[in-house]
Amino acid sequence: VIRPARPDDVPAVHALVRELATYERALDEVEASEGDLAALLFGPAPGASCHVAEADGQVVGMAFWYLTTSTWTGRQGLWLEDLYVRPAYRGHGHGLALLRALAQLCVDSGYRRLEWWVLDWNSPAIEFYRAVGAQPMQEWTVQRLGGSALRRLAAG
Amino acid sequence: VIRPARPDDVPAVHALVRELATYERALDEVEASEGDLAALLFGPAPGASCHVAEADGQVVGMAFWYLTTSTWTGRQGLWLEDLYVRPAYRGHGHGLALLRALAQLCVDSGYRRLEWWVLDWNSPAIEFYRAVGAQPMQEWTVQRLGGSALRRLAAG
Repeated sequence: VIRPARPDDVPAVHALVRELATYERALDEVEASEGDLAALLFGPAPGASCHVAEADGQVVGMAFWYLTTSTWTGRQGLWLEDLYVRPAYRGHGHGLALLRALAQLCVDSGYRRLEWWVLDWNSPAIEFYRAVGAQPMQEWTVQRLGGSALRRLAAG
Repeated sequence: VIRPARPDDVPAVHALVRELATYERALDEVEASEGDLAALLFGPAPGASCHVAEADGQVVGMAFWYLTTSTWTGRQGLWLEDLYVRPAYRGHGHGLALLRALAQLCVDSGYRRLEWWVLDWNSPAIEFYRAVGAQPMQEWTVQRLGGSALRRLAAG
């Protein structure tokens, strides 16, 4: 079962965010609390959405996403920030069902692109993304300013 | 002068989007009309924002952006979709001033990351981004589903 997350799913979603970050060898970069995720998803000005996969009466996977905008398509798109299925529940199509639910949402809502990113060493994920028809944007590299570098630029 | 775009800037912003896409060898991918950009920026549910650089009484540069969400920081961030300064007005700091205005907005609003992407062959841009302290996310590759591949996944 794939469904939009509810406020009472936040603890499970937070646990899955941390499991995924652990797999991505970046748990030390996760500062988000349950309260932070609740505010992003269900606060007065939500900036993100989440779908969950349920099995055996519990949340076993999630897709955390938000809307993007393209000056080329002139339309909105969907950025999939996190896609994760608990290891014990893999191989049952939960990941594909989550991705398909978002693709359906894009088609229904006129969002032109469904995008996300993947670590270059995550071969199982890359194979899965090729299988569903995603195109790797290999000519492009994301640039990030954060922390002290961001403050330095702001201060001039 | 850096300022938020106004509705009457849309024709100039649209022209700059097309100039940038031409430089990026992708003008054929620009489907957005002036009306599309106006709707994204100033419609009933705006999905994006834009700052412009003015000189000699005209718009000579622009930064088109929208808000992102991170499950790691637990905060919003800013994605810079397009940054462009007309060739005749380069070397006067307009690009840096636009980037600095967005960095200041991030610091003031608690957005933790200012991010964008760059084509791997665009050496002048890459040098500029290194100079302001941006970090290239080289381990990550963006995956994109659009067009018929998106519809196929949605249809199952």
